[in-house]
Amino acid sequence: MDYPSRIIEQAVQELTRLPGIGKKTALRLALHLLKGTQAEAESLGKSIISLRNDVKYCKTCGNLSDEDECRICASSRRDKTIICVVEDCKDVIAIENTHQFNGTYHVLGGVIDPLGGIGPSELNIDSLVARVDEGECRELIFALSANIEGDTTAFYISRKLRDKDVKVTSIARGIPVGSDLEFTDEVTLGRSILNRTNFLVKTESGAL
Amino acid sequence: MDYPSRIIEQAVQELTRLPGIGKKTALRLALHLLKGTQAEAESLGKSIISLRNDVKYCKTCGNLSDEDECRICASSRRDKTIICVVEDCKDVIAIENTHQFNGTYHVLGGVIDPLGGIGPSELNIDSLVARVDEGECRELIFALSANIEGDTTAFYISRKLRDKDVKVTSIARGIPVGSDLEFTDEVTLGRSILNRTNFLVKTESGAL
Repeated sequence: MDYPSRIIEQAVQELTRLPGIGKKTALRLALHLLKGTQAEAESLGKSIISLRNDVKYCKTCGNLSDEDECRICASSRRDKTIICVVEDCKDVIAIENTHQFNGTYHVLGGVIDPLGGIGPSELNIDSLVARVDEGECRELIFALSANIEGDTTAFYISRKLRDKDVKVTSIARGIPVGSDLEFTDEVTLGRSILNRTNFLVKTESGAL
Repeated sequence: MDYPSRIIEQAVQELTRLPGIGKKTALRLALHLLKGTQAEAESLGKSIISLRNDVKYCKTCGNLSDEDECRICASSRRDKTIICVVEDCKDVIAIENTHQFNGTYHVLGGVIDPLGGIGPSELNIDSLVARVDEGECRELIFALSANIEGDTTAFYISRKLRDKDVKVTSIARGIPVGSDLEFTDEVTLGRSILNRTNFLVKTESGAL
């Protein structure tokens, strides 16, 4: 494509590096910014630079944070005896939005994926074991993706914690709420029968 | 949504101001930037700021440009006797990509749209009339959208140029190449019959 200006061409090239943004979308975004005020473009540009410079990782759980320790780990209201193990901080946001969990998190920063070149040493597993060793933790909940990589990672970590005095659980796998039985795949349906729960009995978390 | 960091929240808010980017996409973009290097984020942020600060409008045609005069107006190879009138610089890029036009452009910066509060005085119409008055221009081609606003704008400008010695034309309206006759709307089909052209005869531009 033939851009009218080298500055626009450079901005388009930078924008197309973002996921899901092609050349046409990038050009639309650039022209939208050109139509807006100078303050708007500067504010967006500066917040993108600040993002990478100023966001830190929580020294306890590995979640993204403004301070050395994230809001959840620093809060006195959260139950420090339960640690929910997740892949990345998007999962923390997703679980927080359910308002069903009052424990703390541990963000692994990925899952074990030999084909993708990610081994256990690349993940925040040692810091998780250290947290368990401190002794405050009573239960570890795996909230990892329901695929081979997620299962492998959960299995690896549970092996590491074999001798520790901690209960290890996993979030329930089953039919999603609102979904049709006939369109559910056999593996999910099979697991949901094996892991059936009592009907209309309060669960541990207090929800029905 | 509950973001782990105020800096991320701010970046998400800035990104959602862009067209077609919602909260989920903005968060994905922000996390993608966090995973990348600091240099990448800074280069994107700086090019967004530079975009609004350094891009100028061509003093002749109103197109976006790095210099006071755009590449097309400054080029000695372009035919200055033909001016193609377009709505915005996206249209210039689109026509340039066809490689079928060797004249110059005039970017109006919009079309007359009374409901949207855009009158003739908001557009670069006076500078177009001044260019025609200079006497070099022999033909004016309207390449505006095929809707009421586009037609109104073309009609308004052609009235202003009534007494000038300049040929006024419009790009052809008809069946798009590759489209099916039975799915074409009646107005387009009707116009394409009224404006039928000789078959297999070279047109003025040199294309078949």
